[in-house]
Amino acid sequence: MIEVGILGATGMVGQQFIALLAKHPWFKVTWLGASERSAGKAYRDAAAWRLPSPLPEDVARLQVENAPAGAGKAPKLVFSGLDSSVAGEIEGAFAQAGHMIVSNSRNYRMEADVPLLIPDVNADHLALLNAQASRGWTGRIVTNPNCVVVVYAMALAPLRQFGLKTSMITSLQAISGAGYPGVPSWDILGNVIPFIGGGEEEKIETETNKILGTLKNGVVENHPVIVSAAVTRVPVQNGHTGSIAVALEQKPDPDAIVAAWNSYRGKPQELDLPTAPPQPIVYLTEPNRPQPALDANRDGGMTISVGRLRRCPVLDYKFVALGHNTIRGAAGAAILNAELMHREGLL
Amino acid sequence: MIEVGILGATGMVGQQFIALLAKHPWFKVTWLGASERSAGKAYRDAAAWRLPSPLPEDVARLQVENAPAGAGKAPKLVFSGLDSSVAGEIEGAFAQAGHMIVSNSRNYRMEADVPLLIPDVNADHLALLNAQASRGWTGRIVTNPNCVVVVYAMALAPLRQFGLKTSMITSLQAISGAGYPGVPSWDILGNVIPFIGGGEEEKIETETNKILGTLKNGVVENHPVIVSAAVTRVPVQNGHTGSIAVALEQKPDPDAIVAAWNSYRGKPQELDLPTAPPQPIVYLTEPNRPQPALDANRDGGMTISVGRLRRCPVLDYKFVALGHNTIRGAAGAAILNAELMHREGLL
Amino acid sequence: MIEVGILGATGMVGQQFIALLAKHPWFKVTWLGASERSAGKAYRDAAAWRLPSPLPEDVARLQVENAPAGAGKAPKLVFSGLDSSVAGEIEGAFAQAGHMIVSNSRNYRMEADVPLLIPDVNADHLALLNAQASRGWTGRIVTNPNCVVVVYAMALAPLRQFGLKTSMITSLQAISGAGYPGVPSWDILGNVIPFIGGGEEEKIETETNKILGTLKNGVVENHPVIVSAAVTRVPVQNGHTGSIAVALEQKPDPDAIVAAWNSYRGKPQELDLPTAPPQPIVYLTEPNRPQPALDANRDGGMTISVGRLRRCPVLDYKFVALGHNTIRGAAGAAILNAELMHREGLL
Amino acid sequence: MIEVGILGATGMVGQQFIALLAKHPWFKVTWLGASERSAGKAYRDAAAWRLPSPLPEDVARLQVENAPAGAGKAPKLVFSGLDSSVAGEIEGAFAQAGHMIVSNSRNYRMEADVPLLIPDVNADHLALLNAQASRGWTGRIVTNPNCVVVVYAMALAPLRQFGLKTSMITSLQAISGAGYPGVPSWDILGNVIPFIGGGEEEKIETETNKILGTLKNGVVENHPVIVSAAVTRVPVQNGHTGSIAVALEQKPDPDAIVAAWNSYRGKPQELDLPTAPPQPIVYLTEPNRPQPALDANRDGGMTISVGRLRRCPVLDYKFVALGHNTIRGAAGAAILNAELMHREGLL
Repeated sequence: MIEVGILGATGMVGQQFIALLAKHPWFKVTWLGASERSAGKAYRDAAAWRLPSPLPEDVARLQVENAPAGAGKAPKLVFSGLDSSVAGEIEGAFAQAGHMIVSNSRNYRMEADVPLLIPDVNADHLALLNAQASRGWTGRIVTNPNCVVVVYAMALAPLRQFGLKTSMITSLQAISGAGYPGVPSWDILGNVIPFIGGGEEEKIETETNKILGTLKNGVVENHPVIVSAAVTRVPVQNGHTGSIAVALEQKPDPDAIVAAWNSYRGKPQELDLPTAPPQPIVYLTEPNRPQPALDANRDGGMTISVGRLRRCPVLDYKFVALGHNTIRGAAGAAILNAELMHREGLL
Repeated sequence: MIEVGILGATGMVGQQFIALLAKHPWFKVTWLGASERSAGKAYRDAAAWRLPSPLPEDVARLQVENAPAGAGKAPKLVFSGLDSSVAGEIEGAFAQAGHMIVSNSRNYRMEADVPLLIPDVNADHLALLNAQASRGWTGRIVTNPNCVVVVYAMALAPLRQFGLKTSMITSLQAISGAGYPGVPSWDILGNVIPFIGGGEEEKIETETNKILGTLKNGVVENHPVIVSAAVTRVPVQNGHTGSIAVALEQKPDPDAIVAAWNSYRGKPQELDLPTAPPQPIVYLTEPNRPQPALDANRDGGMTISVGRLRRCPVLDYKFVALGHNTIRGAAGAAILNAELMHREGLL
Repeated sequence: MIEVGILGATGMVGQQFIALLAKHPWFKVTWLGASERSAGKAYRDAAAWRLPSPLPEDVARLQVENAPAGAGKAPKLVFSGLDSSVAGEIEGAFAQAGHMIVSNSRNYRMEADVPLLIPDVNADHLALLNAQASRGWTGRIVTNPNCVVVVYAMALAPLRQFGLKTSMITSLQAISGAGYPGVPSWDILGNVIPFIGGGEEEKIETETNKILGTLKNGVVENHPVIVSAAVTRVPVQNGHTGSIAVALEQKPDPDAIVAAWNSYRGKPQELDLPTAPPQPIVYLTEPNRPQPALDANRDGGMTISVGRLRRCPVLDYKFVALGHNTIRGAAGAAILNAELMHREGLL
Repeated sequence: MIEVGILGATGMVGQQFIALLAKHPWFKVTWLGASERSAGKAYRDAAAWRLPSPLPEDVARLQVENAPAGAGKAPKLVFSGLDSSVAGEIEGAFAQAGHMIVSNSRNYRMEADVPLLIPDVNADHLALLNAQASRGWTGRIVTNPNCVVVVYAMALAPLRQFGLKTSMITSLQAISGAGYPGVPSWDILGNVIPFIGGGEEEKIETETNKILGTLKNGVVENHPVIVSAAVTRVPVQNGHTGSIAVALEQKPDPDAIVAAWNSYRGKPQELDLPTAPPQPIVYLTEPNRPQPALDANRDGGMTISVGRLRRCPVLDYKFVALGHNTIRGAAGAAILNAELMHREGLL
C-alpha cells in the first residue's frame, strides 16, 4: 500500500477524499493536514463528518497536523483539497519539499508547466511535469479541473473529431460544489442563484481549452473552441448539469455523435485503473435524462451521463451532460490522476 | 363592474385567476366552468384550493357548471385556463356563441387570425381580431403566450432596436408551471429534470417570433430572430428563470442595453391599466440577481426582472431574465389582455 | 409619527422589522444600529437585503451606527433584533439611558421584572415594567417569546379554562428561524435535523409557563402546565409547525375546544391595534391543514392556524398549530408589543 | 437459487424489491406481476424505473404478467408490493393456490393468523402460519409492518424490559413512502403536510402492539403499551424520522437504555441472514443525529438509528429514531422475512 496524505482534510473535498480512499486497493491515508484550528486533534474531533458513508475508523483516530508543517514530513503522495486562498503557497512548499501534490485547487491549473488533467481525455499532458524541474522543485504538482469543466470537457472531447468550433453552456450546479458551510439554505431552498463567485464562468471558458488542447514539443497548445459559460446554483445536493450547445465544422448526424460518446475510451480504461469507470461517457436514450438524483452516482460517480441530443437552430446541436461534482469533479478526479501517475511510474 | 366567467376554474391557472381577480376594480367573477366531475358543486367543494391567498367567499359559494354548457350562458368576457386537451373545442364553441375568450391555452396561439398578446409588447396585434369574423364567430379569442415566452419575449422586445439576430435560452422552470398535481415530488425534490413535455421548446422557438413580429396590412409578419431553447424543471415553486444569450447586428454597449430595458414602456403603462406594472422590465445591478424566491413577486408578479448582462464570447451578450410564471406568465397575462381590450372598447 | 430605532438592523430579524414597518401608520424607522463592521455605511451597502419585499428607499439611505453608540442618541423607542451574544449588555445600556427597548432577544425574557409578552394573551404583564425602576433604569425592556413559544402559547392559552395540566410538542421549524447565514444548505436540503442549539427545548419548557401565568401583586405566577418539547429543523422557508398533545382536567368535547380557539380575542383585537389580526387563532377544518406554505402568511403572518384536533390515547387531545416564525414569532410580535405600549401610554 | 415472483412489480415498492434482489445470494427474480395495463410488456417498457441504482438487465427483459393470472403459475415464493386496494383479493388467491406470499401490503397484517413480522423482534410469530391451514390455503401469507411502525417498534422493542407503559410519536415521513406519483411537488416543496391518509396514525397505534406482543399457545397477545401517533410528511426523499417519548415502569438511567439499544440482537443476527444488519439498532452520540440524509442508508438501509435520548418532563424519556422507509420499512423488511422463512424451512 502506498501511504498518502490529505491537505485540507476537514473540508468537504477532504472528507470526500477520505470516503473514496476508504477501500482503495493501492492508497492508504496516513497523514492529514488542516488549519491550525484542527491541529493536534484526532480527526474524529477536528472534522464534523458530513457524508452519508461512515468515517473510516482508522482515519478517525489519526491526529491532524497543521498543514504547512507537513512539507517534508507527510507521505510523498499528497492529495490537496485546500481552499484556494491558501493552496498556492502550501502546495508550492510541498512540491519544493519533494511531494507529489495531486490537487483539486485552482491555483496552479493554468500554469504552463502544470498538467490540468482528466486522464480519460489528456493523459499525455502528464509530460508537462518534466518542466517543473526548472522551478527548483523536487516534487511536482498535478491538478484536476473545476467541477463543471470535468463534465463539460469530457462531453466535448469526443466531438473534437467533428471540428468543434464553438460551444455554449448553462450550468445548473449542486450545492456541494460550494463546500461547507457553503450556500446558506435561506438563499437556495426553492430558489435558483444565477451566479457563482470565484470566477466560475471564466474558469470554464479557459480550463476547457487547455484540457482539450494538444501536447506539442512539451507544451500544451490550447484547443481553439470558443466557449461561453453561464452558471447557476440550484437546490440539488450532488451533480452538476449542463445545458450545452455546440457548433461543429463537419455536420455529423446524431447517431455519429452518440456513437462517439458511447465508444469513447481513454487511458484509465486501457490501464484498468481502480477508479476508472468502464465507459466514461454514457448516452441515455430516455427523453428526460440525465438527472442528478438518478444519474450522478453512476459507476461510483465517475461516469459522465449525456442525453437529449437534438438539433440547435443557432449552433448545430444541443444536449445535456451531467456528472458528480465532488467525485468525478473533485476528489475522484484527483484519485484517478494519482492512479494514472502510479501506473506511469511517477510516484 | 364587468361580469366575467372562468373556464377551467378548478385548475392551477383557474385558481390563480380567482385569486388575482378577488379585488379587481373592473372585473367580477360570476360564472365558473369546469369538468363534468365538478359540475353542480359549490366551488368550495369542487376545487381543492391550493394558493396561499384566501379563497374569496363570494366565489367559494358559486356553483360550478359543466364548461361546455356555458356557451351562450356565461358572461360575455370569459377567461380560460382550460387544459389544451379540451380547450380547442370549448373555446371555439364559446367564441362562436359570442363570448370574448381571453385564453391561457396554447390551442389558438399560432393561428394567423388570433392575437398572441403581451400588451406591453404588441398591443397593436389586437387588430387581428377583425379577421376572426370570417370564422363565423360573433365572439373572439385572444391568447397569451407560454409562460417562458412571456418572460423571454419581454426581455428581447427592447433589444429589437439593436438588430436582434439570434438568441439562445436555457430555462429553469418552476413546478407551478406544470399545474396540479403536476410534477411528482419524487421526480423533482433535490433534482433537475432537463425536459418538459408538450413541445415546450418548440413553443418558445415559434411563439417568440410571432409576438415580436410586426403587424402589416392586418397580418403579423414574424420577427426574423432565430431562437434556440433548452428547457429544464427545477425545484422552485414560482418563477421561471432564463439564461439567455443574444447576437445583435449593432454593437451597443452594455449601458445602452440596460437603458433600453429600464426605459421600456408599453400600452399598459400608457393606459395605466390596473394590472400593469409601472416599469415592466427592471434591471437589477446586484451580481447574483434576479432570483425566483426574491424577485418573482415584484409589483404583484407582473414585472420582468433582468440581470447579469455581460459579453458572450459566442454570441454578443448574455443575461438572466425572470418572471412569475403563473401571474405574468399565465393568469395575470390574460387579465392584462382583458384590461387592454376593455380600454380599447372591445368588450 | 413616532420615530423608532432598530438594533441589529442588518440581521434577518432586523430586516423583517424594516419590511414590516415600511407602511406602519404610527412608527417610522429613523435610526439603525448594527455591528462595528456596518457602522458608517448607508444601510443599502451595509445589509445584504434578503427579503422578497423591497427595501424601502428611505431606510436604504439611512446611515448605520455602531449599536452601542446609540444609547441616549437613538429614538426613545428601539426595537432589538440583536444576537443574544451581545443583546444583554447593549439592551441594558439602552434601558439605562432611557430607551424603551422592545426586544426579540432571549436575554431578559425570564427576568422577574421583564414582561414576556404576547399582547393577545398576557397584555396585563406589562405592569411588570414598574419594577424595572429598581434597576436604576430610566427606560424599560419588554420582550417577546421564542418563535416556537409564540405559536405554542397562543394555541394553549384558550385551553387554560379546561384545566391545562400537561402538554407535549414536537416542533418542525423553518430555516428562517436560524437567521442568516444560519443553516447550511448541505445540512437541510432534503433532510431533517432533530436538534436546534441555544437551549431551544428548554426555552419552550420555561417561557410557556411564564406567558400563560397570572399577574398577582405585581408578580407573575407561572402557569403550572408541565411542558415537554422536542424540536426539529425542516426544509421550510417560513412557518413553525407544532405537533401538540394536551391533558386537560375537564374533559371538553372537541367542539368546545374549537369554539374556544375561534372565539379567542385579546387586547390587540379590543384596541384594534394596527398589526393585530382580526381573529388571532383560526381553526382550519380541512384534514391536512395547517401547512406552512399555505397558512403561515394568514393576515400578514400574525394569525396562528390550528387544525387536526383529535383524541390522544395517551394525553387527552392532539392537534397541529402553525405560525409565521419571523413575523408572529419575532419582528411582528415585537411591533405588536410596541403598539400595545403606545396605546397604554407607555411610550 | 430460489426463484421468486413480485406482485406489483412496477410500483415504487416493486422497483425497490428488484433493486435489492439484484445481487441476492439466495433469491432470483423470475416472475413479475402487475396491472393489466402492463401485462404482456417487457418490464423495461412497462415500468418507468425511478431508482438511482440501475435496472438489472435480466429483469428488464422479463415479460410482465397480469397479476391475478400468476396464481398457481408464478414461483412458490412471491413478494407483494401490491396496492392495498387490490392486495386483499390477489394475495388471498395466491395463498389459496399454494404460494408463500411475503407481503408489504396492509390488508392481512392485523389478521389473527397472519404473522406481522420484524424478524429482529418477533421471529417466533412465524408460528402463526400453522393456523392459516384452516383457511383452506395450501400457501401462506406473511406481512411486514407499516413503514413507520418498523422504525418505531424496533426502537421500542429493547425497552419492553423496562416496563414500557405508554408512548407518543410524531413522525416526519419521507415522500417515497407515498409511492409514485405520490405526493405532488406543489404540496410538499418547502412545506410540511401534517396528515397522511389511509389511516396512518391508526396503523401505528395498532400494529405496534401486535409486533411487540407475545406468542402464547399459538396466539399473539398484544403488548399493552398505549401508543399515540401524529404523522407528518416532510420534503425528504428517503427516511422516516420519529420524535418519540416513552413512559417506563422501571426508571432505568440513560446508559441502561443506550446499552439496551446497542446490544440488541435478534434472530437475523443469530442466523446471519444475508440482509440482516450486524447491529439492528445503533445509538448515535452526536447531539444532532440521526438525520435522514446522513443515516437512512446505514448498513444498506437496514439499521435503525436512534439518538438524542433525554429526560421527558411529561413521560419519562424522549428520543429520536430513524429508518429507511422503502428498505427497512418495506422491500428490505419483506426480503428479511423471506430469508428467515427460508432458514426456518418454510419455503
